[in-house]
Order: sequence, then structure tokens, then C-alpha cells
Amino acid sequence: MDIIKGLGEQSPLYVKNCWYVAAWCNEIDIHQMYAITIINKPVLIYRKENGELTAMADQCCHRHMPLSNGRLEGDDVRCMYHGLKFNAQGRCVEVPTMKLSGEDVPDNFLVPTYPVAEKHDWVWVWLGDPDKADEALIPATTGPDDPDWFMHKGHLDYDANYLLINDNLSDLGHIAYTHQNSFAGGKSDAYFNQPRVQMIDRGIRITRWNTNSPRRAYQKSSDDFFDQYMTYDFIVPGVLMMFQGMYKAGGAEACDFGTPTTEMEPDTASFTSQSVTPMTDGTSRYFFSWGPRMVEHKDNPDIVEGMWALANKAFIEDKETIETQQLNIQLRTGAPMVSIQDDRGPNMFRKMIDKMIAEEA
Amino acid sequence: MDIIKGLGEQSPLYVKNCWYVAAWCNEIDIHQMYAITIINKPVLIYRKENGELTAMADQCCHRHMPLSNGRLEGDDVRCMYHGLKFNAQGRCVEVPTMKLSGEDVPDNFLVPTYPVAEKHDWVWVWLGDPDKADEALIPATTGPDDPDWFMHKGHLDYDANYLLINDNLSDLGHIAYTHQNSFAGGKSDAYFNQPRVQMIDRGIRITRWNTNSPRRAYQKSSDDFFDQYMTYDFIVPGVLMMFQGMYKAGGAEACDFGTPTTEMEPDTASFTSQSVTPMTDGTSRYFFSWGPRMVEHKDNPDIVEGMWALANKAFIEDKETIETQQLNIQLRTGAPMVSIQDDRGPNMFRKMIDKMIAEEA
Amino acid sequence: MDIIKGLGEQSPLYVKNCWYVAAWCNEIDIHQMYAITIINKPVLIYRKENGELTAMADQCCHRHMPLSNGRLEGDDVRCMYHGLKFNAQGRCVEVPTMKLSGEDVPDNFLVPTYPVAEKHDWVWVWLGDPDKADEALIPATTGPDDPDWFMHKGHLDYDANYLLINDNLSDLGHIAYTHQNSFAGGKSDAYFNQPRVQMIDRGIRITRWNTNSPRRAYQKSSDDFFDQYMTYDFIVPGVLMMFQGMYKAGGAEACDFGTPTTEMEPDTASFTSQSVTPMTDGTSRYFFSWGPRMVEHKDNPDIVEGMWALANKAFIEDKETIETQQLNIQLRTGAPMVSIQDDRGPNMFRKMIDKMIAEEA
Repeated sequence: MDIIKGLGEQSPLYVKNCWYVAAWCNEIDIHQMYAITIINKPVLIYRKENGELTAMADQCCHRHMPLSNGRLEGDDVRCMYHGLKFNAQGRCVEVPTMKLSGEDVPDNFLVPTYPVAEKHDWVWVWLGDPDKADEALIPATTGPDDPDWFMHKGHLDYDANYLLINDNLSDLGHIAYTHQNSFAGGKSDAYFNQPRVQMIDRGIRITRWNTNSPRRAYQKSSDDFFDQYMTYDFIVPGVLMMFQGMYKAGGAEACDFGTPTTEMEPDTASFTSQSVTPMTDGTSRYFFSWGPRMVEHKDNPDIVEGMWALANKAFIEDKETIETQQLNIQLRTGAPMVSIQDDRGPNMFRKMIDKMIAEEA
Repeated sequence: MDIIKGLGEQSPLYVKNCWYVAAWCNEIDIHQMYAITIINKPVLIYRKENGELTAMADQCCHRHMPLSNGRLEGDDVRCMYHGLKFNAQGRCVEVPTMKLSGEDVPDNFLVPTYPVAEKHDWVWVWLGDPDKADEALIPATTGPDDPDWFMHKGHLDYDANYLLINDNLSDLGHIAYTHQNSFAGGKSDAYFNQPRVQMIDRGIRITRWNTNSPRRAYQKSSDDFFDQYMTYDFIVPGVLMMFQGMYKAGGAEACDFGTPTTEMEPDTASFTSQSVTPMTDGTSRYFFSWGPRMVEHKDNPDIVEGMWALANKAFIEDKETIETQQLNIQLRTGAPMVSIQDDRGPNMFRKMIDKMIAEEA
Repeated sequence: MDIIKGLGEQSPLYVKNCWYVAAWCNEIDIHQMYAITIINKPVLIYRKENGELTAMADQCCHRHMPLSNGRLEGDDVRCMYHGLKFNAQGRCVEVPTMKLSGEDVPDNFLVPTYPVAEKHDWVWVWLGDPDKADEALIPATTGPDDPDWFMHKGHLDYDANYLLINDNLSDLGHIAYTHQNSFAGGKSDAYFNQPRVQMIDRGIRITRWNTNSPRRAYQKSSDDFFDQYMTYDFIVPGVLMMFQGMYKAGGAEACDFGTPTTEMEPDTASFTSQSVTPMTDGTSRYFFSWGPRMVEHKDNPDIVEGMWALANKAFIEDKETIETQQLNIQLRTGAPMVSIQDDRGPNMFRKMIDKMIAEEA
């Protein structure tokens, strides 16, 4: 496997017909401009005065100046190099010199707009064929805006290719080691259970029971050990939605290491939505939320802060790990790579991405 | 138009047979070495003890060490790696080991020298065919050394290809937007008048009247609005010399929007000389002066400082704009570019540069 | 001569069948991991619990994570991405998921190990054909661990290709100029004597007498001038071992500018071991020691500190010189290079390196 095959080469590296997460909803205020490069394309997103989003190429059709360096005028955006003004549909509606001379702005004075949607607390953009931009393709995750969950949210920028981050998110094997001092609670031996990995529509599903999972400080029950259940879908292009529940010891066996039954009430449960957005070939933005059920902790914000701090510690462990891996890979030693069981998720997901890229080509 | 066509490619990107500004005259002291890379060539310039300038490749013929890292010995320069000494004509006159053994220094021990001239307060070098280095080709600008003008001078280094800076300097359309908070005094609508753009020998000439130009703090007359006249030549490789005058409202019409008549006395006038020197493909040095007539403000240095501060604010606006544009262009999205009337200057000037490069090839 | 021929190209640039200095012995503590990239290969070195060294590729065979980001477990090292554990022979002895399922770790789960040796206070690694790794090929230098010498040691990282540093170390001509204010004591004319340069096994030998060498502050005798004798071997891949002695004026003639006789006792003498290790094409690590005879100065640590400070000043002069040269060379002006007598050492050594690279290809 060429671990970051596209890096520095001209091969098509990205799926285009998919929704990429561009921001958390609250990262884009009313009447402010938000700029992000996604799969090497500069993208401008802003809210119109009615609060609706619009997304377009962040590149004036005249001299390629970022429109985000300009200013909003009502629902329009004006490039502050030569004053071209674009409406929210990307059409140039004013060229100062043409205005003066009474000329019409030609039809080809426009920047491409992109389908944009707000869902699950995320802003999603579609950079591929707009006719295919079906909002039903947005992964059905749960976001921090869900009142049943007490979630925090953030993002981290990686100096790494998105494929390496996807790999990391589509395997559970690294938790016992990379996250030994955070998620694994110092107990690596609790995490050797192999998860079930299966292909689903536009992604993979990973489920696992870890028996003998040590009690966390924030848990209600005073039992020493629990059976931890994790299940998540990881969906193209890189959206993770994971449920975790700590069940009374014996829970795993009670449901035959399958899906917990509806009678089984977790001692504590958490949900996380995460997403990887390739910015350039060597940089990516990683969005994440994390939190317990509202019913559990709405009166214990301190506990939630503690869980959030733990999650952030783990996210930084991932970032440091993957950025280090990227640097080592860039030495291009040509050494072979062996495969282990933990690679089922990454391999399955990469094959899916490869297939989609090939089909789009 | 491939906006920075040469960037990272091997095509010839620079005119060679022309004078490039290397420094302001006072940036090179008696018996000090001044180093600057111009069109990717390292250049050393220094003053001999009689004050005359000499320019040569800043690269010892032995191991390519910059001579500017060495030291001056009289009118000679000694490389401080192995002690080779060169005279002001670039000829190696001493190799320590050869001196010891009484050998003659071979004829091919030399570094190329370059024609160099001081004119209009600038130091100019000619990196092309020395036989063609005619000082008459130095643009006839007015420099800060002119006693009729009260000018300040400076330079800024850009992380940008020189062509983008040339574009910016050869169009007036950006003033109303890029410089809305400096030169345009917040009044963008005063700047929609299209300038006259014409080809002249080795450059272009741009002239424009802006009526209803608001009074500046430093103006003598208490009128609210003036007719602003701007005229400048932009000459190969990138030298701008601009006169601006604020005339009583009605002045533009009085001369039929042409050249002000000799009877027309401006309320205030300023002159600026500017020059763009490509250092490497991605970096450039921008030299600039600015100031009013001496007769007007010789007793008001504070006002001149204010004008200079305004000019500097605008020069930094340009730098930020062009460097941002450069970064966006480097994403190479392949999006087309449309042309507007403001591009007449840039297009005319680029064609001239292209033609000269083609003729030299 | 293409001065840094391999830079950015794919030509083989390095001798592989040789010992590279990786560290000073005390830079690797018991049970700590030491990571260094040598000729573009990431190398991990650590001490086993018995103090013996082991060296291997710093790259897990699974996902190319640096093992040095992991942890030592006894004499084994565990990758902290997915928990693969390797023994000191580079064999993977545990894959957590395989351990759980009782599977054997496949034979191809291994990282290459490298012959490693401790000698003369340096840690040496051999990255070429291990069958050829003969410790007899380690240059027979004297290190700071030698009780007869009072030596200090250190290292500097260069942003420069190793060939330029080798050139610098294999010629004495630069001392009078680059080190005018340190080693040369301000007296450049004392250093024009051409050294004798001869080829020896796997390297070159350079010897020189400088008569009229001025007295240094730390010398015992109050004479004003001495005859300075320098002799050093510079051995593949870039190991320098130099003896210097200050002899009574007339000493050079007394032994006919040859090797000092055994009767000739130097007023003061010093020894230095130095080594250049290419890390990447554009970075190198330079190791150096320096000091006088123990018998001379064991009661004068302040004087030794002074000599060490002078040596460090000179080593930084070299670094600044070579890094500046590298930047100028990277402009690739294509200008020719002339050769002088001082190049005998560099040329002889480069030819030797070239020949070895060609033979290995």
C-alpha cells in the first residue's frame, strides 16, 4: 500500500462527489466571511442577512484574489482589489468601470458556487458535480446541537495528509497504545478484543466489546470494572459517529458480544462526531465533538469538562502521532509495510475511497 | 493569461537587457558591501574609495562563496573562504597560495562585473549584454535627491512574483478599493473615471482626472473638493514615475480632461518614483519615494510626515493584497480569468515584457 | 565539479559501506532511545539493560511510525501506534491482536538492524551491507575518553550538504581567512605554507608547518613565535583526526619540515576528532572534540575552557560560512568554478567518495 500515494504527485487524490465538513455552524457568524481550503480549492462561506449560508470559490474571476479578503455588502461580496461585486449566487453584479460606462456585466463574470448545507451542527459543502449533491448523502450523525447530548466541539489542524488521519480513525487497535494515558486509562490489556468490521453503504461499521474496562471517575456506579461497548460508522469522505456505553460487567456476554439489548441500560454513555477535511495534500482539518447523555450529566458540568479534557488529550495524541508518521513517511525509505488485523478498517475504507476516485475519473 | 507563468518553470521570465534598481544611493555607503539577488543572480555592489560604484557577481569564482561575506581591502574585495582577492573589475589579483609560490593568477580567475549607474537617487545595474548598457535607457524619473521636491524614500520586500506587483502598479482601478482607507480617503466613488492608457517608448503612460476628490488635511485651500490629476509612466522593467496635482474644482473641465495648462497652478502636488526589482521567482523588492513640492511644504515637515505615513499605509496595503493573491494563485485551481477595462495597463505592459523576453531568447 | 551534485536529484550521493558517527557515547543513556536520520534513513539506537547498543531502522514495519516515539520494555522496543513489540534484533515478537488469538508473528515482521559499535567515544553505525561491517574500518582516532588528553566535545547541526563540509575540513587554506579571528589569531600571513597532501588508505593525510606562528595566551613558554605543526588524516566518510603542536621557532627547519622527531617536545599540543554525518541531502551533523594534553593542562581547566571557547568560535565560523555558501550554490547560476592548490585535499577526497559510490552502485 502506498501509504500517502498522492503526496506530491499528480494522481487524483480526492473524492469530489461527497459532502465535506467545512466548519462547525457557530464558526460562521451572521455576515462574516469564513475561508477554508478544501481539497486544494479555496472556498468562501458566509451567511446572508437571513442567516442562510452561501458557498463559492474564494477566488475572484478577475485576478484570483481571495474574495474573503474583501467585504460583505448586504448579501453580496465585493472583491477589494478592483471592486467587482458578486451576489450570493456567484454572479458578478457590478464592475465599477462598467457601472460608470453603463455596460452590462458579461455572463462569464462569475465564480462557481457550491451546494452548502447545515446539518448536525456542521456546515457541509459539495465540491463535485452539483447535480449529484443530494443532502441525503450527508451522514446521519448526531451533533452537539442535539438536546439529548451534552457535547463540546472543536477542531485541530494537522500537518498531515488526510488518508493517514482516516486510517487512524478507522481502526480501534491504536487506542490501547496511542491513547494509553488517556482513553485507555493506562490499561492496555483491556483493549485487545478485535472489533467486528463490516462494509456498509458509503462506509464501514466497527463494533467492539471490551470487557474488564476499568471504572472512570465520572461513572455513577461504584463497580470496578465494566463491559465497554463501542460502535461507530466511518463514512465517506471521513465522518465518524461513535456511540460508547459502559455496561455492568457481564453485559457483553449477556448480548453475546452483539448489540446491547434495549433492556440494557449503560451506566454511562457518550457520543462523538468527528470529521476529517483535506485542506491541501499535506494539511487537514479535524473537527470533533464529544460528550455524555444530557440526562446523565446535565447537573454535572464539571464532569463533562473532565471528559472533554480527556478527549482533547487523546485528540492531541493522535495529531502528534500522525504528524510524526507523516514526517517519517516523507523520507520515502521504500521499506515494505506489513498488514495486521487492525488494518481491516483502514484497508476497507481506503479501497472504498480508491474505488470512488476511480469511478469519478 | 497565465498570471505568474514562469513560477517554478524553466521558461525565461525576465528581461535581461534593462536597468534594474538595486538600491537607493544612500543604502550603499563608502566602503561597504551591499548584496542583493536580482533575477536569481547574486549581485555585489560597493563603493570604491573615490565613491564610484562597482557591481559584480556576488560569487567567488572558486567555490561560489558570496564575496559580500568577505571584506573590502582598498578598492578590492577579498573572499574570506580561501582569501582570493578581486579588483573592482572582477579580476582575481591574488590567490594566497599562488602569491607564495610566485605564480601568476590565471586569466579565467574572474567574476563577471555588471554596468552600474547612479541616477535619480537610485543605483541601477544591467545584468544583460554589457554592450547594450546604455545609460540613456534609464527612465528619466525624478528622485528624492531633486531639490525641488521634499521626498522620503524606503523599500519593502514582497513574497510575490514581480509580475503581480507590476500589474498592481500599472492599473489605477485598484486605488478605490485596495486603498479605500488610505489614498482614496474613504471615497471610492471619486475614482471610477477611467484613465487614458497609451503605449510609449519602453512603457506605458496613464493619465486620469478624478473630479470631486475630497480635500486632504494638508491642502492649503479650504475648498471641500478638488479635481485630482494623476499622470504616470511605467517603464521597463518596472519603474513608475507619477505626478499628482490637486486642482480647483472645474480644473479638469477647463483643460478638457487633458494635460493641465501652464496657467493652472495645483493647490498641492506630489511626485513618487517607484521601482520593482525581481529578486527570485517568488520574491521582489519594491522601492518607493513620495513627497510634495519643496516650495509648498519646506516649512511644514510635519505635514510631509503625514503624507509619507499615508503613502506607507497604502504601500503596505498593496503588499498584503499581492502576497495574498500570490498564495491563492499558487493553489493553481485552473479557473479562467476575465478581463476588465482596468487591465489595459497591465496587459499592455505584460505584452511589452513578453515581447522583450522573446526577442532576447 | 558539480559542487553539490546530488542535491535534489536521484543520483546516489552517499557511501553506504562505511561507519557513520551517530552520537557521542554519552548522548545515549542506559535505556533511552536516540533517534537520528543518517543518509535519509531514520535510525534508532538504544542501550540494552546491560549497556550494549542496538541500532535499527526507526520505522515500524507496519505503518512506518518512528519506533523512537514508542517506549522501551526491557531490551525490547514497542511501537506506540498499534503496539507491535520488537526485540533488540529487530524481530517483531508481539502483535497484540495476534497474541490474543494465539497466532505466531510472521517472519517478515521485522525492521532492519544495523551494525553498531562504540569506539573512541563515538557511536558508529553501518548502514550498508552488514557482511562488510568490519570494525577495523573505524578510523583509529583518539577520543575525549582518552586519559592522555583533556578534551571537550559537542556537535552542531548544519543546514548544508555534507560534501561542502567535507571540502571545508579537507583543506587548510581556509584557516587564514575563515578563521582569521579565531585559529589564525589575526595573522593570516603565517598560514600561506602549502600543506603536504597525500592519499592514504580510505582517506587523505595533510601535514603542514607554519613558521612564525604567534604565541597563544595559554602557552607555557614566553617566546613570541613558534613553529606550528599540524597533521591530520581525513577518512571516509568524513572523520578528521588532527594533532597540532607548537614547537620552538626553528623546529620546522630542524626536522626539514617533516615529522617532528621524538626528541622535539612541543611547547603545547592539542588533538581534535571531528566527524561529519549526512542526515538528509540538505542537513548534516558535525561532531567535534578538542583539547590539549592532560599532562599539560590538567591543573589549568580555565585554560582548557579558553581553548575550547576558541575552537567553538571557529566551528561556528565554519558553519556560517558553509551555510552561506550552500544558499549561494542553490541559486544555481551555472557559473564555472576554478581550482586552486587548496583544492588538492577536497578534490582527492571527493574522488575517493565518488569512486566508492560508483563501486557500490
